[in-house]
Amino acid sequence: MNPRFSHLSHLECPECHWTGDSAVLAGLCPVDGKPLLARYDLEALGAEVRREDIAARASTMWRYHELLPVQTPEAIVTLGEIVTPLLALPRLGTELGVPGLLLKDEGLVPTGSFKARGAATGISRAAELGVERIAMPTNGNAGAAWAQYAAKAGIEALITMPASAPDINRKEIAVAGARLFLVDGLISDAGKMIAEAVADGDWVDVATLKEPYRIEGKKTMGLEIVEQLGWTMPDVIVYPTGGGVGLIGIHKALLELRELGWVTGDLPRLVAVQSTGCAPVVKAFDAGARACEPWPDAQTIAFGITVPKPLGDFLVLDGLYDTGGIAVAVTDEELLEDLALCARLEGHFLSPEGAATLTAVRHLRADGWIAADERVVVLNTGSGLKYPETVAVDVPVLAPGTP
Amino acid sequence: MNPRFSHLSHLECPECHWTGDSAVLAGLCPVDGKPLLARYDLEALGAEVRREDIAARASTMWRYHELLPVQTPEAIVTLGEIVTPLLALPRLGTELGVPGLLLKDEGLVPTGSFKARGAATGISRAAELGVERIAMPTNGNAGAAWAQYAAKAGIEALITMPASAPDINRKEIAVAGARLFLVDGLISDAGKMIAEAVADGDWVDVATLKEPYRIEGKKTMGLEIVEQLGWTMPDVIVYPTGGGVGLIGIHKALLELRELGWVTGDLPRLVAVQSTGCAPVVKAFDAGARACEPWPDAQTIAFGITVPKPLGDFLVLDGLYDTGGIAVAVTDEELLEDLALCARLEGHFLSPEGAATLTAVRHLRADGWIAADERVVVLNTGSGLKYPETVAVDVPVLAPGTP
Repeated sequence: MNPRFSHLSHLECPECHWTGDSAVLAGLCPVDGKPLLARYDLEALGAEVRREDIAARASTMWRYHELLPVQTPEAIVTLGEIVTPLLALPRLGTELGVPGLLLKDEGLVPTGSFKARGAATGISRAAELGVERIAMPTNGNAGAAWAQYAAKAGIEALITMPASAPDINRKEIAVAGARLFLVDGLISDAGKMIAEAVADGDWVDVATLKEPYRIEGKKTMGLEIVEQLGWTMPDVIVYPTGGGVGLIGIHKALLELRELGWVTGDLPRLVAVQSTGCAPVVKAFDAGARACEPWPDAQTIAFGITVPKPLGDFLVLDGLYDTGGIAVAVTDEELLEDLALCARLEGHFLSPEGAATLTAVRHLRADGWIAADERVVVLNTGSGLKYPETVAVDVPVLAPGTP
Repeated sequence: MNPRFSHLSHLECPECHWTGDSAVLAGLCPVDGKPLLARYDLEALGAEVRREDIAARASTMWRYHELLPVQTPEAIVTLGEIVTPLLALPRLGTELGVPGLLLKDEGLVPTGSFKARGAATGISRAAELGVERIAMPTNGNAGAAWAQYAAKAGIEALITMPASAPDINRKEIAVAGARLFLVDGLISDAGKMIAEAVADGDWVDVATLKEPYRIEGKKTMGLEIVEQLGWTMPDVIVYPTGGGVGLIGIHKALLELRELGWVTGDLPRLVAVQSTGCAPVVKAFDAGARACEPWPDAQTIAFGITVPKPLGDFLVLDGLYDTGGIAVAVTDEELLEDLALCARLEGHFLSPEGAATLTAVRHLRADGWIAADERVVVLNTGSGLKYPETVAVDVPVLAPGTP
């Protein structure tokens, strides 16, 4: 028998443990309306593949195809999802008191943000299951990624977005030929419009966690980090958290790798970073709760993490509690200072969301939660190129010939 | 004896064949003022390394380190120079009449443009040779890349740029801590300011082709294309041409690979793509000349290729003549249409310079210069994220609750 390309076995509700057929298009759990997770036959996978086999494969996120839901190589919809680098930040790390600081730079994937990973798996799987029209609300980068992958797949896309989202996201969505509607409100308002638009059944709702495969793509960040560290785990992983799917995906990846026996020991402590202008996860964590309350008047320059009430809140909080992690809120002023500091000391032009993780490390090191000798990975979830407003430039224009 | 990390042997003037010591900081040829090229001991290299050895190495441009000038792994200044994907464009290719069309997407390298390759080698080598201050004129993307790599290396950077260059480039240069001066003119005017600034010897002039190592980094585009095609050459490579270093570098890569015996047969026909608003190479090519005349009133939305008189014009033209290539000019209107078409059909949001290569393919296929069954590689030299002005968006803003 040929080795299976994917070991996807079924879907499961992480809350009520309802299980369903993964070969059928699925949304939320039919019992309790919670997000469904993809499950794999890890025993069969472990018998067919060794972690050493991965090394010889092409350096894309699809090198982990057994742990991804797409059934055949031909079904992959790709814009070139290269493995992103894991880079030392020695000078900034020393400045922050954590010399072993590492940056996973998601600004280098197609569409300039980690959202491409989720869109690549989500669109590939949707196309494989015969979907022709998708609809979603977005804070910007996810909509841009899904619009571009949908174009590649020949799928129609309908996207709603807050009018206050970064300008570049409008351009990305429009140029890819998606139908775009702007709303004078937050992503929660954009989401309500989508819920109405999909009610007649013509469009499939692929909003965050409303379909089970976006998270599978984001999982590859966790797989890559572990492989890049020689199949070992770091001490701490710091993630900017809006909808939280990145953090949920990394947590899921680590659990699957440990179950496979490809990695052993304690999971890294996961840190969810939010803005003081929108910190529902931090508030819930501090209260020891397992669900968020909607955050009123959400606002931050780190626009990607302006999510007042994430649908997957309980999965994010479970990830923090299970790993001995923490949730931290930082101010816009602080994160902009660390964005500039990182560029000056290390040359990386981060997104404000990515820069927020540096500020979090600064605080957690200062109060002793992170030790000086720990191996800490921060995620830059997008390219600074998408956020020109984070940099103020005031230079004179000289006439030609000025000495 | 240990294998050598780099087989750099000396510097050579491609025009008068003066040779010089590569261990010493060098600018232009001291005899005729032409750009110097790095030369390698290809015989020793071929005896120590086989092309198959490359496959096991990390997927970065440094996998070709024997053919690069940096002397030790420790001397590499990196922001994460991953090998960029070579991707099929089946639907667009069919539309253009070249189903085998391939896209090499340089939008995915650090700093969002192919300029990172030149900056990575140029800054690494400069730091290795003890340089502490660099100065350069730029049309935007090169300055952004050099500023960010200089920051990583702890080198001071002084950069002059046309005020009309893309806004994002100002941000990238400023955030990295470089000294930036804007000039109300073209890159040629910016270059004159740098020539004066470096006259006192405090700053090293690293303008295009005024130091020999930028081209070596750009060479890796050619090395990657050949390796990605299983150590074979495509029929045609299409490159947007301003200063021309990318095209010169690719040509140099192909010649070195052929001398090594790692690839055989005819070189691909190289195509230099310019704008009808600034086409000095096209004009020279059509006249059978080996040098360009300065182009008056240069202007195009593809700002990166607004170079009125490239210093390396003779090397670009040699590359076209030697390979049976051609030079083509396209209009802004055409390239913007092909930019939008590529996004709609293939999901890739290209730079205007990258989109210009698609228009060139369209013309060359229409007049039969490219055959339908040929394997054609187009280079997207930068991310569309850097050029929001290429996309017009006019969508209404709805109130929350609008159905």
